Amino acid sequence: MHTQVAIVGAGPAGTLLSHLLHLQGIDSVVLERRSQEHVQQRVRAGILEQGTVDLLRESGVGERLDREGDVHHGVNIQFDGERHRIPLSDLTGGRTVTVYSQREVVKDLTERRQRDGGEVLFEVDDLTVDKIDTERPVVHYTHEGRTQELTCDFLVGCDGFHGPCRQAIPAESLSVYERVYPFGWLGILATVPPSTEELIYSNHENGFALHSLRSPELSRLYLQCDPNDPIEQWPDERIWAELQTRLGSPGWTLQEGPIIDKSVTALRSFVAEPMRYGRLFLAGDAAHIVPPTGAKGLNLAVSDVERLARAVTDFYGTGSTTGLDTYSEDCLRRVWRVQHFSWWMTSMTHRFEGPDAAFDRRLQRSQFEYLLHSPSAATTLAENYVGLASI
Amino acid sequence: MHTQVAIVGAGPAGTLLSHLLHLQGIDSVVLERRSQEHVQQRVRAGILEQGTVDLLRESGVGERLDREGDVHHGVNIQFDGERHRIPLSDLTGGRTVTVYSQREVVKDLTERRQRDGGEVLFEVDDLTVDKIDTERPVVHYTHEGRTQELTCDFLVGCDGFHGPCRQAIPAESLSVYERVYPFGWLGILATVPPSTEELIYSNHENGFALHSLRSPELSRLYLQCDPNDPIEQWPDERIWAELQTRLGSPGWTLQEGPIIDKSVTALRSFVAEPMRYGRLFLAGDAAHIVPPTGAKGLNLAVSDVERLARAVTDFYGTGSTTGLDTYSEDCLRRVWRVQHFSWWMTSMTHRFEGPDAAFDRRLQRSQFEYLLHSPSAATTLAENYVGLASI
Repeated sequence: MHTQVAIVGAGPAGTLLSHLLHLQGIDSVVLERRSQEHVQQRVRAGILEQGTVDLLRESGVGERLDREGDVHHGVNIQFDGERHRIPLSDLTGGRTVTVYSQREVVKDLTERRQRDGGEVLFEVDDLTVDKIDTERPVVHYTHEGRTQELTCDFLVGCDGFHGPCRQAIPAESLSVYERVYPFGWLGILATVPPSTEELIYSNHENGFALHSLRSPELSRLYLQCDPNDPIEQWPDERIWAELQTRLGSPGWTLQEGPIIDKSVTALRSFVAEPMRYGRLFLAGDAAHIVPPTGAKGLNLAVSDVERLARAVTDFYGTGSTTGLDTYSEDCLRRVWRVQHFSWWMTSMTHRFEGPDAAFDRRLQRSQFEYLLHSPSAATTLAENYVGLASI
Repeated sequence: MHTQVAIVGAGPAGTLLSHLLHLQGIDSVVLERRSQEHVQQRVRAGILEQGTVDLLRESGVGERLDREGDVHHGVNIQFDGERHRIPLSDLTGGRTVTVYSQREVVKDLTERRQRDGGEVLFEVDDLTVDKIDTERPVVHYTHEGRTQELTCDFLVGCDGFHGPCRQAIPAESLSVYERVYPFGWLGILATVPPSTEELIYSNHENGFALHSLRSPELSRLYLQCDPNDPIEQWPDERIWAELQTRLGSPGWTLQEGPIIDKSVTALRSFVAEPMRYGRLFLAGDAAHIVPPTGAKGLNLAVSDVERLARAVTDFYGTGSTTGLDTYSEDCLRRVWRVQHFSWWMTSMTHRFEGPDAAFDRRLQRSQFEYLLHSPSAATTLAENYVGLASI
């Protein structure tokens, strides 16, 4: 079996790439280890940058997003109970973010691929990749009990941090940059209407908390915690009490409700360079992880595959390899900008321990007050948050 | 002997305060441990914020500053040999910085005090302060061989980090915030015309370097180094070679010349809160130290005493203690803003060691590129560098 572009992973990066290529008449096959139900049930990020929304809309998969997505013109930053709104669209010439869950994006894209006759195979086992430094990479895998071999012109790893694609690259050909933060996020999904119309990023002396949004009936909230905390240490009452403390602000009430999902995630920053080896290209989490502060992971994946789709289209249309050759460098410029922003948002809003902790907390307060008083400082937050138009 | 305001220290803070009070008809005595020659020969900072220049000019001590000071409309930031100019005045509505050495400021102020009949005593020994929590603080000291006692309505410590005033405050009444950086600055003064018209802050993989300015005949340059480096490890040839490497940029030449002064200074951030105890007020380095990146130490001292002079004037004029009561809080808002800015400039431009070093250097590069491409990011640097007008 042969396809022009073999894509490993049916998350947002893989399904969007397959869709964008299809619009240009380019064949692809998407291979996914998990079941369709599993992929579409995962609780993930849900803040789409302006550029992400634009791309989904322009490529014809924005109908439900436009109907159900919640457009946000601002975001709240809070320090020691003092809340301050950053007017995103006022500071960026009208750009916004949209709350629309990653799983809805994946659902829209997968259904569209299936409707268009695209090949998206789920529950693919034993996947290995080979001959990635030739003009005909090969993917071996098992599907519905049968061993398969798929050759391709290009292979794209959209298979996440733990996927096999990046690991197929010889270690000496990759540079890895990493930072592990000394804390994690306890995330919950609760069946209660959100207590705020716009997100609240809060720095409290107990630690960071975030009131995010999901839908009119569901709220998504987070607490900074020890990354090794067993979930049993966080009964629902403790979670709500801590959210009340950290998010509390005069004249405002946090509504509580049944918690239907909770989990602890460690925070890390990770970048593998370059994002290409021979005919293998990496996109999204396979190449880079950002801490969730700022909600950039999904948006960065979208930016990668948008660029890659263009490069592959150019190649088939004109024979030019320029886009393919500059793919990694061009992506990495945005990757590092977003790493920097995510690190900055994290360091401004989280509690840090250690000998400099008291000093650092004063710096955090000064940074917060500066955001309140300086339009240029507020604009740096806003323009990164809605996504820099060009970089 | 009695005076309204006893001032310890005849550096820029002490002499300026005495001058500003004199303009309002308020008596003061300035007591300085070192000789007049010593104080006026010290090699110190030389970048004056717009607000510092305005104050010196408005208070009638700006004549020589206006004649000899070198007004700068921009500053250069460099990363791996790539140089980029931040147009300070374009980004801040015309505000600038002025290169005019601290020792010239002190000279102008001291001579003006002496011309106006002010009491500025040098070579004062054995100074101790007492009764600072009463309405009549006392200063004991020896001058010209005689033991003296000076009572005052207010006592002001402009006596630097190591001076006796802050140490007279009970430890339990002070909160101290501190950060010691893992590096120092090797600073040189060389008799060679500057090789640049505007300062260059350079981040090179070997470490930070700064080409500052002093006069048409003198250049001031700095290298990041180990804070424990003995000065003998830095013969002149090594210094110039390292400056050539770290400041090098295509098409640009660094002129070398005889080095007439060199020394290593450790970098630290320090803040003592509050800046008042009873009738003792702290100003300048006695209350806070900033790392020299950004050249804020002198400017912060000037900002403190400007506020204090106003508060003391109000007190004698109207009996109001409002200015005195809010002095510490009002000063500390700017102190922490400047601490944050100085930390930010330091962390963006210096070499750091440790497990995250490679990751951090990528963040630094991204920060540098962001300054190039985002007007709002460049403005945050510019507005802090020329000095925020109000805070």
